[in-house]
Amino acid sequence: MTNNIIKPSTLPGFMELLPAEQILFNKMLDTIRDNYEKFGFLPIDTPVIERAEVLLAKGGGETEKQIYKFEKGDTDLALRFDLTVPLARYVAQHFSELTFPFRRYHIGKVYRGEKAQRGRFREFYQCDIDIIGNGKLDIVNDAEIPSVIYSTFKDLGFDSFTIKINNRKVLKGFFEHLGILNSTEILRTIDKLEKIGLNKVEEELKEQGLEQDKINKIIQFIQISGSNEEKLDSLKKLKIENDIFNEGLEELIAVNHHVKVFGVPEENYMIDLTIARGLDYYTGTVYETFLDEYTNIGSICSGGRYDNLAEYYTKQKLPGVGISIGLTRLFYQLNEANLIKTEDNSLTKVLIIPMKGYLDQGIKIASDLREKDINTQIYLETEKMGKKFGYADKLGIPYTLIIGEEEIKQGRYSLRDMETGKQEMLSIEELLLVLKDS
Amino acid sequence: MTNNIIKPSTLPGFMELLPAEQILFNKMLDTIRDNYEKFGFLPIDTPVIERAEVLLAKGGGETEKQIYKFEKGDTDLALRFDLTVPLARYVAQHFSELTFPFRRYHIGKVYRGEKAQRGRFREFYQCDIDIIGNGKLDIVNDAEIPSVIYSTFKDLGFDSFTIKINNRKVLKGFFEHLGILNSTEILRTIDKLEKIGLNKVEEELKEQGLEQDKINKIIQFIQISGSNEEKLDSLKKLKIENDIFNEGLEELIAVNHHVKVFGVPEENYMIDLTIARGLDYYTGTVYETFLDEYTNIGSICSGGRYDNLAEYYTKQKLPGVGISIGLTRLFYQLNEANLIKTEDNSLTKVLIIPMKGYLDQGIKIASDLREKDINTQIYLETEKMGKKFGYADKLGIPYTLIIGEEEIKQGRYSLRDMETGKQEMLSIEELLLVLKDS
Repeated sequence: MTNNIIKPSTLPGFMELLPAEQILFNKMLDTIRDNYEKFGFLPIDTPVIERAEVLLAKGGGETEKQIYKFEKGDTDLALRFDLTVPLARYVAQHFSELTFPFRRYHIGKVYRGEKAQRGRFREFYQCDIDIIGNGKLDIVNDAEIPSVIYSTFKDLGFDSFTIKINNRKVLKGFFEHLGILNSTEILRTIDKLEKIGLNKVEEELKEQGLEQDKINKIIQFIQISGSNEEKLDSLKKLKIENDIFNEGLEELIAVNHHVKVFGVPEENYMIDLTIARGLDYYTGTVYETFLDEYTNIGSICSGGRYDNLAEYYTKQKLPGVGISIGLTRLFYQLNEANLIKTEDNSLTKVLIIPMKGYLDQGIKIASDLREKDINTQIYLETEKMGKKFGYADKLGIPYTLIIGEEEIKQGRYSLRDMETGKQEMLSIEELLLVLKDS
Repeated sequence: MTNNIIKPSTLPGFMELLPAEQILFNKMLDTIRDNYEKFGFLPIDTPVIERAEVLLAKGGGETEKQIYKFEKGDTDLALRFDLTVPLARYVAQHFSELTFPFRRYHIGKVYRGEKAQRGRFREFYQCDIDIIGNGKLDIVNDAEIPSVIYSTFKDLGFDSFTIKINNRKVLKGFFEHLGILNSTEILRTIDKLEKIGLNKVEEELKEQGLEQDKINKIIQFIQISGSNEEKLDSLKKLKIENDIFNEGLEELIAVNHHVKVFGVPEENYMIDLTIARGLDYYTGTVYETFLDEYTNIGSICSGGRYDNLAEYYTKQKLPGVGISIGLTRLFYQLNEANLIKTEDNSLTKVLIIPMKGYLDQGIKIASDLREKDINTQIYLETEKMGKKFGYADKLGIPYTLIIGEEEIKQGRYSLRDMETGKQEMLSIEELLLVLKDS
């Protein structure tokens, strides 16, 4: 056939991994899922394509620009750009069939037509949990979320990370108390403190036309330091007479107390009054999570409390709290930081290599091992011995098992540890023990 | 806020499940994945969006009509409509980094803008395995595939199913021998034998202008019956002098022999000379799988051998063999046949119910259980006792654990079996034993 060859390539902004990396990526997905299930979250899976009208119900902003939209027949369709909007639609649609508080996890791909640049992805996995109340939702839920984050990142193999917690009501009330009613811009500035430093923050606040005494109070406020308890004490001592502030402070105190009860070690969480998540729809508790040694990666898990999940789809009031892990970006960044190790990562435990004339015996042993749930591959091609061992080597398969005349006669099989090169003659039972353990 | 409420609904042809069903669906996905990994297949995950040019390289036919296409910037994009085309592109693109034979599995969603009708889905999961050789691939691989099918459907809980095996070369050679060079239409007719019956097949063949003696020979051929060995014997006895026929027959004999060696029971596979998979690109072995008691569902797992996977993307010759399970459609049909049972299906083992004033103690025990990898939820809302038990009931959580004054004093906790209503006072250690076992 004389075909035109089309260059095989993926689009920029779409991650595609080789199998050894994919195995690691999947292990991370599994760990996240196991943890979400350990905390009693239920799985859902929504369509990637929805009516554009549904996904853009809230409308406006970056979303509208970035969303993948297209027509099919006479319907405007779009690809989901997060898992929160589909959750809102799901809960509104299936309201009467769900049990509240509704705890759901959702792991899936989302799409954003961002400007292509290194480390930015147009297709990426989000791993979300949310707890949705019907009408109300106890503040203790806000304290359980950090324990999910803690358990998950521990299991992912991270030791030094910090979950930063704040409450938007504390910020909102504080600004109201200063006579500032629209604090969006200020919050956005404060949010950048870590990045741009105190002086730049002060400068920006001046540019926004704030009086110096208010700026001083804001600077003083975001510099409140010490242990979590000391920070809470300092906030109390401000004696601010503002209902929203005091409601937020009470919530923050409750969350701080219960996070500890949920077993999150002191070194893994802290109250940080500069965490604002300015652009989001959060109304109470907010979270961000940082790797202590790689803060430049930015927050690896964020979220918060919101008053009303699904106002665009239902009149039911549905407060909730949740977080999201953007695994594609995290994986990319861990890889950039050389923290992804693809060695010793084979899912297959053993490669069976039958000698000439012993194929059937090899197949039988492969079937036996598989029946015992041992991931087994059998080499079926006609090749030289060296090539067969090389195959196991390249794939990182830890063991090879040779089946030939001697082996069948003795009922013992020579298992070779591909790392050490050590070879042993083992009975099937001994074989199973070694392979089950490894 | 006075929003316009947008009706929360999904598009027709898109499956969305409630959590109890989703748990079952995910279990099926996991079972399939576990089996694919047990046989040494490596995971890959490709973008859902690719350049239209790449996905439509082969072009023509139904695909072109059904594919979701759209523009972003000045690039023509499309959503993948199967996992085979992306595999071809992947293998061509990463050729030098892969190890051959390349055994990959891929579980993911694909998109086809089909006419909406009951049981037809526009978004559905495919679960594929393929073994790709570099230049050549031993026929024994074709015999390993049915053992993956067997192991997978056994683990999915099916007992009576039949993997039907045929070889396109046998058909092609037989028709050549009859002087029929273009057998596409005939194959399509034969493929319908099960559905339309022998008389209709004969009629259709007549309409296609075939001479009666050829029709007789075809009818005689597809009626060859008996055990697998008897069928192979009958084929041999035809003494057809056609190279393609005899090559196919030899392959079929080899596959039949090795399928048995791979441990597939005789009752779960059969040679069926009417299986043609007429419209596909298969060139040798072909498979279809039927539930014996629900043949009307159609084939639940199909595939076959092809000569050249990636001819549109590379000059490398890449023969392969593979199968696909369309899980979304299968799940839908099992549900229609009342074979999906969502009871006793909770991922969460126990709901902790703290009495008033014992929240912190409840949280601590929840954390302890979670640390022992027991999926645990704690009820955090202020509600009446009945509502709390009702919550466990609705979600099908098998146990509740009450934490109150008495329990804390004794260091024993009352575990209630939600099905039997039986309640026991247990120590933490006893608790762990019960919950680990259940």
